[in-house]
Amino acid sequence: MITLKDIKEAKIRLESISQKTPLTYDKALSDMNHANVYLKKENLQITGSFKVRGAYNKISLLSDEEKRQGVIACSAGNHAQGVAFAAKYFGIKATIVMPESTPLTKISGVKAFGAKVVLKGQNVDESYTYAKELEKQEGLNFVHPFLDDEVIAGQGTVALEILQDCKDVDIIICPLGGGGLISGLSLCAKALKPDVKVIGVVASGANAMLKSFKNKKAQNSKSVKTIADGIAIRDVSPKMLEYVLKYVDDIIEVDDQEIAKAVLCLLEKDKLLVEGAGAVGVAALMDKKIETKNKKLAIVLSGGNIDVTMLSVIIEKGLIKSDRKFNLVVTLVDKPGALMHLTQIFKSCDANIVQIAYDRNSVNLDFGDAYVPIALETKGLEHKNEIKALLTKNSVPFKEV
Amino acid sequence: MITLKDIKEAKIRLESISQKTPLTYDKALSDMNHANVYLKKENLQITGSFKVRGAYNKISLLSDEEKRQGVIACSAGNHAQGVAFAAKYFGIKATIVMPESTPLTKISGVKAFGAKVVLKGQNVDESYTYAKELEKQEGLNFVHPFLDDEVIAGQGTVALEILQDCKDVDIIICPLGGGGLISGLSLCAKALKPDVKVIGVVASGANAMLKSFKNKKAQNSKSVKTIADGIAIRDVSPKMLEYVLKYVDDIIEVDDQEIAKAVLCLLEKDKLLVEGAGAVGVAALMDKKIETKNKKLAIVLSGGNIDVTMLSVIIEKGLIKSDRKFNLVVTLVDKPGALMHLTQIFKSCDANIVQIAYDRNSVNLDFGDAYVPIALETKGLEHKNEIKALLTKNSVPFKEV
Repeated sequence: MITLKDIKEAKIRLESISQKTPLTYDKALSDMNHANVYLKKENLQITGSFKVRGAYNKISLLSDEEKRQGVIACSAGNHAQGVAFAAKYFGIKATIVMPESTPLTKISGVKAFGAKVVLKGQNVDESYTYAKELEKQEGLNFVHPFLDDEVIAGQGTVALEILQDCKDVDIIICPLGGGGLISGLSLCAKALKPDVKVIGVVASGANAMLKSFKNKKAQNSKSVKTIADGIAIRDVSPKMLEYVLKYVDDIIEVDDQEIAKAVLCLLEKDKLLVEGAGAVGVAALMDKKIETKNKKLAIVLSGGNIDVTMLSVIIEKGLIKSDRKFNLVVTLVDKPGALMHLTQIFKSCDANIVQIAYDRNSVNLDFGDAYVPIALETKGLEHKNEIKALLTKNSVPFKEV
Repeated sequence: MITLKDIKEAKIRLESISQKTPLTYDKALSDMNHANVYLKKENLQITGSFKVRGAYNKISLLSDEEKRQGVIACSAGNHAQGVAFAAKYFGIKATIVMPESTPLTKISGVKAFGAKVVLKGQNVDESYTYAKELEKQEGLNFVHPFLDDEVIAGQGTVALEILQDCKDVDIIICPLGGGGLISGLSLCAKALKPDVKVIGVVASGANAMLKSFKNKKAQNSKSVKTIADGIAIRDVSPKMLEYVLKYVDDIIEVDDQEIAKAVLCLLEKDKLLVEGAGAVGVAALMDKKIETKNKKLAIVLSGGNIDVTMLSVIIEKGLIKSDRKFNLVVTLVDKPGALMHLTQIFKSCDANIVQIAYDRNSVNLDFGDAYVPIALETKGLEHKNEIKALLTKNSVPFKEV
């Protein structure tokens, strides 16, 4: 295991490239939780996530000979960018193996730093296997995303900065995937302030670490499924579990809907783009899963690399979840004036139509009827219920979808 | 006209509520322009825009009697929130008149600060007329969004902070609508550093100030149309033009497509949500409309209050504009295997289908043909051209849409 000294040394190395990201008071979250909530904005870090800290620390410690050989890593996301960035900084060769399904933007992000991208495997585990082969074949140096002391020391520098800016923090809330960030962070935080609590947050769809934590024994998942791809880890490494059991006080989980709501909230209220994995701490707080009253909290927003196509989906789901969009299908009599009558109803209750179609051919329809799928912009649950009541009062058959 | 002293006094008043927003070096924009580019992030300001500075300064200077009477303002956006926030801070009554078409989120934003919202008028001009009536009828104090020295002094504090953080700035680029921000900012910047250049950026769809600046005479537009609603000003006030002619060095314009591209870039690269009006400076820089070589630039990101529904549209348009989405309609022979053949072509050139439909009923079609509208995720212009060439080579008729 590493020590505080390793993290402090990593911090000095990192000074040439990484930004000390802001730790900012968040009024809305503070008021909502009767607490003082600060956000550690690692989404504003260079390369868009904290991962560059570990990757850079690791690569800077390679010998000249190792640097000459070049590095290899396997990642579909932030670690890939961190490694590519650090390799470019030292002018060394980097190969990144990514799953074949990796979104184009993530591939271009890595290529932009001059790294070679190899698309191989149906998922990260298959890519990993291939990367380990390449490591041997080509004599490259493997940079593991978390199972590496020098990587962990790099990630730990996040806690140094939090404690520097907020000496009396009571609780640090941190996304938890493989465990690299939370290990370095919790070790560092407790070395500086022994009574600080560190709480990890996993995605429900990838909660092997939560189960392992409860059973004090590494347990793997069969598969993972979450929009928080940055923490979608299937297998728990016993070494990482050791760190977690030693330094982390509790682990909680949040589901995709809660994560989507948090991403949307950070975007709308804080004007920040945070990826799913980066928003789990805020999701946990919004859903009151943590006892916070009168406490001083720091939440790590670990990264902001979210595909904009995915963002559109999250916005959409977040709007529906918070009753600001209402999707329904109305059955109309297929005759002149029918749609006018319907639109008058919506006008009367101030509901804005943002999407509408007209289908008279569906086999499920009676002759003379038409389906009209509609999306309405609404003001919240109360408004939505008002609209439903008005449709019922006017004998308009409809179904929420 | 105000003086630097007024702005310095406003800054002291503002210390109790407004955040000194970060001025951050932007590597991507700097590299792209062979310059040192800093972003002044007023989108991270409390209430999500700089407008709270002017509104707060104005309201704090009201007498006790005036405070007791309450304030009224007319705005569809950021000024409304600024006034509502400041009124709440002083515990005084605020009435905000907004156009009837104001998005629900903006209405809720204002109501959340406890202000009374009156929806009146088809556009801001009609709302303004009504607000002036209410001012008299109810004996309220009008807080103008820009035509007010105390408001201008408040907005000027943005420049104080820029010059404090970056003493040797050469050029400040600033969004330009009514002129409140740029007047205070340019007056202040030139008082502190006489050789600094201030460049205003208007939206092409609302460029009355640009025309007035060129003709040195206030000219109004007939109508305005732009996604940058925060600077969609139809009429030019002679008093504001006087400030602009005296302190602003140049005015340039950017169109909606350029603005959308800038909003998308700030979101993806900088992880920041910036509204259309807030992104015009970056748009001007991205489209190389300003001579920047070896200069030190500060760009004001004036606000981040963008409707997420609008954001979805901007993301979509931005992706198409940057050739990362390719919408086309293919004409297929309507028989088994036709779609398989087409999808094989897309697979072979690594183009991801994100949307597809099948229409065999269109009246424009020959019998036995079908239209297939498709949206593809692409990697850029080169990739798009590769796909087009491949379709042509395989004799697949298509049309870009």
